[in-house]
Amino acid sequence: MNIRYSERTSKIKASEIRELLKLTEMPDIISFAGGLPAPELFPIDKMEIISSKVLREDGKAALQYSTTEGYVPLRDIIAKQRMSVAGVKASVDNIMITSGSQQGLEFSAKIFVDKGDIIICESPSYLGALNAFKAYQPTFIEIPMDDDGMDVDELEAALVKYPDAKMIYTIPDFQNPSGKTMSVERRKKVAKLAKQYSIPVLEDSPYSELAFEGNVNPSIKSFDEEGYVIYLGTFSKTFCPGLRIGWVCADPEILQKYIIVKQGADLQCSTISQREIALFMKEYDLNEHIDNIKEIYKRRRDVMLDSIEKYFPREVKYTRPKGGLFTWVQINENLDAAKILEEALKYKVAFVPGGSFFPNGGNLNHFRLNYSNMNEELIVEGMKRLGNVLQKCC
Amino acid sequence: MNIRYSERTSKIKASEIRELLKLTEMPDIISFAGGLPAPELFPIDKMEIISSKVLREDGKAALQYSTTEGYVPLRDIIAKQRMSVAGVKASVDNIMITSGSQQGLEFSAKIFVDKGDIIICESPSYLGALNAFKAYQPTFIEIPMDDDGMDVDELEAALVKYPDAKMIYTIPDFQNPSGKTMSVERRKKVAKLAKQYSIPVLEDSPYSELAFEGNVNPSIKSFDEEGYVIYLGTFSKTFCPGLRIGWVCADPEILQKYIIVKQGADLQCSTISQREIALFMKEYDLNEHIDNIKEIYKRRRDVMLDSIEKYFPREVKYTRPKGGLFTWVQINENLDAAKILEEALKYKVAFVPGGSFFPNGGNLNHFRLNYSNMNEELIVEGMKRLGNVLQKCC
Repeated sequence: MNIRYSERTSKIKASEIRELLKLTEMPDIISFAGGLPAPELFPIDKMEIISSKVLREDGKAALQYSTTEGYVPLRDIIAKQRMSVAGVKASVDNIMITSGSQQGLEFSAKIFVDKGDIIICESPSYLGALNAFKAYQPTFIEIPMDDDGMDVDELEAALVKYPDAKMIYTIPDFQNPSGKTMSVERRKKVAKLAKQYSIPVLEDSPYSELAFEGNVNPSIKSFDEEGYVIYLGTFSKTFCPGLRIGWVCADPEILQKYIIVKQGADLQCSTISQREIALFMKEYDLNEHIDNIKEIYKRRRDVMLDSIEKYFPREVKYTRPKGGLFTWVQINENLDAAKILEEALKYKVAFVPGGSFFPNGGNLNHFRLNYSNMNEELIVEGMKRLGNVLQKCC
Repeated sequence: MNIRYSERTSKIKASEIRELLKLTEMPDIISFAGGLPAPELFPIDKMEIISSKVLREDGKAALQYSTTEGYVPLRDIIAKQRMSVAGVKASVDNIMITSGSQQGLEFSAKIFVDKGDIIICESPSYLGALNAFKAYQPTFIEIPMDDDGMDVDELEAALVKYPDAKMIYTIPDFQNPSGKTMSVERRKKVAKLAKQYSIPVLEDSPYSELAFEGNVNPSIKSFDEEGYVIYLGTFSKTFCPGLRIGWVCADPEILQKYIIVKQGADLQCSTISQREIALFMKEYDLNEHIDNIKEIYKRRRDVMLDSIEKYFPREVKYTRPKGGLFTWVQINENLDAAKILEEALKYKVAFVPGGSFFPNGGNLNHFRLNYSNMNEELIVEGMKRLGNVLQKCC
């Protein structure tokens, strides 16, 4: 065969995380690699009731095609419930349903980015977003982070230096992979800069509701006066990822572009899944469900950080996330976390090497640990094994 | 706001069909516009049993993330059952699950087409595919059709004239919108040309199993010796579109590109929907279900064609589809079907004007009629009304 692919196809490669997820399917492995929620918290019995009810009440509509924008009652409840948690006043007209936030990420690049255009992102940033963006052949400008998230002075300097930049991408809460959270002051500044430099901000917010300490932070979107901020939400971390339901919240003018792109991409999300989530949120208290998740994840985070403290070499640095699913580990500069993974797999423990989270390369001496998917006992055992590997290598 | 979109976004517009679907939601309208299956045939009770069983047997896995390629037992049963109906020997390694065939269409353009590249397609062709392709800014070369489908001599002439063409797009069975079917001889020729000119053929096959007369035709893929044919299948017309489950069947080398693109696009399809369809096909006979659908649709087609004969002006031409969902009507050359739709809507009857099915424009004197979604009584009434409108306009 002698097939000629598009230029972009030759430039995109398989996501390291997805490839690594295959490793987590190996028997006996203790995996901190994926970003999987704890399946024991899925409301399986309630979903059975909900699923039957949706089919009995209006099965014909639930199994039929429906509109690209999404099921109106779901869009309505997202606008009222979830967006108000994020501090945003929104209506049905601001919401389009997506197949997880991943689809919102891909659409954003498609909508804003031509070949060679600049995307400004945090350094490091979410690998799955970077891979989705790469299909549109952008140039990435990485902005360093500290404990308060993206450095907004550096961001402004980049906006001055690159006035043609097309999009700012940020995960302000419990960032993937770093676990860091942007301060409220900086969120205000990002919203202000977006307006000042007429540049859309893509606010990726899968973890914001999983705040272990205090309230959910106000989103950047909550400080958006003119509609430059596009907010991506999802039920993957607060409910069930297997249903593949997320949303875009944006100004109606911008949202119209997402709707057109979604028409071409896959017509619409699953009709029945949309109705199930809407009915679940009507019949049960999703906030209560999220409270349960937070309690478990908070304990797992504590166990992981305690175990790192206990078993990892002293010189290893790591973040102390206030929510979400991940902590981020930095090892000696001359080490390559991918090599350490190879060694770790011999002891049946896995993580994601950090290199791929930096779109312009380098920084191989980092890795990401997930604490949501393994129970406390396995976290202790896994950290002990990983600690041994690190003691040997570092 | 002063947002700068990508070049492609300014060139794509909302699908006429999807916009028109909104009209079908108006009360009392008799709509032949959409491509909706008959919802009264959806196996609602069986789906309730299946859905409960999937959740009870392995709810944790059903609601969790899973692999991009799709659920192995579903890929396996598609390879064995559905692809053998299409005359293709396939295995799990040839199948990736997509969100309907629409997603397979969009991915194909993303994988093969750079700006300005040539896509060769039937004239007319499926509007939703054309819109998905347009996002990648191709040039379309339209190949005329006769009662045996795409004219393969014209196709070969185009391949000679445009040796850099990137993709041939065809719907060989009961084509959308024309209702025409490609002869077996031409299918063989298309497979041969693909190999000879090293060009991928995208075989879009949503309707092939809805053959009212005799067996399902052998697919173009069944004559593919070297892997140039990419087959798109879906459960949307043979089961339920609301679940959004389709598939790509391709050579593993090509399929790898689809898997990478899907990773970036939305990670994976709904885990639970995939398990539901796989279990349905294990516990029930999908072929029997398809037989029921065919029986009903065949009667509806007959009623529609009889009513056209009875109520439409003599000079109107129309196709006699041997399966699928659509017939295609040609009116006097100086008429614009979009204007006739405006008139028809006054009488509460709807169809899709044909102009948008021609990627390079023109041909306004056509429209598409769907016969799967309205019952026989409404088809007679709708055709009567439409006949009156046409008698006035023509």
